[in-house]
Amino acid sequence: MAQIEILEHERIDDLERNGYRIIQNEKKFCFGMDAVLLSGFARAGKGERVLDLGTGTGIIPILMEAKTEGEHFTGLEIQEDMADMAGRSVALNGLEDKITIVAGDLKEASKIFGKASFDVVTCNPPYMNQNHGLKNPEEPKAIARHELLCTFDDVAREAAALLVPGGRFYLVHRPHRLTELFETMRKYKLEPKRMKFVHPFVHEEANMVLVEAFRGGRPQMRVEAPVIVYEHPGVYTKEIYEIYGY
Amino acid sequence: MAQIEILEHERIDDLERNGYRIIQNEKKFCFGMDAVLLSGFARAGKGERVLDLGTGTGIIPILMEAKTEGEHFTGLEIQEDMADMAGRSVALNGLEDKITIVAGDLKEASKIFGKASFDVVTCNPPYMNQNHGLKNPEEPKAIARHELLCTFDDVAREAAALLVPGGRFYLVHRPHRLTELFETMRKYKLEPKRMKFVHPFVHEEANMVLVEAFRGGRPQMRVEAPVIVYEHPGVYTKEIYEIYGY
Repeated sequence: MAQIEILEHERIDDLERNGYRIIQNEKKFCFGMDAVLLSGFARAGKGERVLDLGTGTGIIPILMEAKTEGEHFTGLEIQEDMADMAGRSVALNGLEDKITIVAGDLKEASKIFGKASFDVVTCNPPYMNQNHGLKNPEEPKAIARHELLCTFDDVAREAAALLVPGGRFYLVHRPHRLTELFETMRKYKLEPKRMKFVHPFVHEEANMVLVEAFRGGRPQMRVEAPVIVYEHPGVYTKEIYEIYGY
Repeated sequence: MAQIEILEHERIDDLERNGYRIIQNEKKFCFGMDAVLLSGFARAGKGERVLDLGTGTGIIPILMEAKTEGEHFTGLEIQEDMADMAGRSVALNGLEDKITIVAGDLKEASKIFGKASFDVVTCNPPYMNQNHGLKNPEEPKAIARHELLCTFDDVAREAAALLVPGGRFYLVHRPHRLTELFETMRKYKLEPKRMKFVHPFVHEEANMVLVEAFRGGRPQMRVEAPVIVYEHPGVYTKEIYEIYGY
């Protein structure tokens, strides 16, 4: 394996999965539990081609390569330096044959890759659609969290165009936008079929939702057992330890 | 209190709440946990007028009279003999001043009561929209479970027409129809704002969903802590014992 360059402010984290590691930069953006939960919720079978929209550090393709039997994984990232860092993480794990990182705009994804070119599309998009008052909208953290460079409509439109008929779209988002998420997905013929809510504690409101939608699917929803994050303050539930691979 | 008539196959059950009792007929239909959970999920404040669409035994108005500060409760029921039985349950509890049972078709409810005439509408509608293969579609149990005499579209349309602006609609239904429920409610400007999923066990899929929608509300969803029914097989969780008032 060639020497991998590590830039200033970058660190290497162990993913506790297949011995894989990832490069992160705290000054820019570090992945959260949402990305890890999505990589455990999403499915990719033998021979399937998977695209992650707005891949950031590349965490979702790297974890899905470890956890699923998917054939090939692509991560699309608009920020050039993030895409470069994700590409170096792929190389760090020797996964260049399985994972390709592409620098580009997800709003153009179906033009970049061609229509109906993936079996599975994943996305951990910016959650917030209110951008007013943002001090620095060019900050990588702001771009990851706020709909500055893309809206959820862009995400759903491109996911639908990129998927083969019957292909699957996996999303993690905030429950407060659920009715809008459903409406937008259905507008593009992405039918939500499976959901899982994430609650910090069993007696608290959900703060994340995982959604599986089928391109052209018929309406029929399953709401799986909730993910409960903490057993007690500071102590994860067994499920979270398992998802994190400890 | 006058003598209340009890017909053949009828029985009187204790509701474990305010000393209230209810008349039921096993040959026709007995209320389930869904109605009890809805009466705990729904809110009615001081001075508010509440209508229950398809009230059956009258369980929801009777429990809500006990649990909330609502001013007056009306139950609408299409089956004459069920409406009569519900009316006798109201009399049995001496609640004739607080609860009115009306025999009539919910599809005509906004004509019967007038538009914008309630602050709160509740409904535990038939869940099943596939009626083929039903042996006896005139059976009270079939009418309660299958969309034979009304569809969910009828329920949402009438609820929206009956509510004052900002009024609240409370629904219990099956999660598998969730995307359709959302779409239909929003079609009639009933905006789902709060949900609670009911899981038989913490590691099982949801089999019921409770929804609060506001007439003319802005999109913003809260997904509350799930209701878990059983702690162990045969042993209810503390929450269920509390809802049932033991």
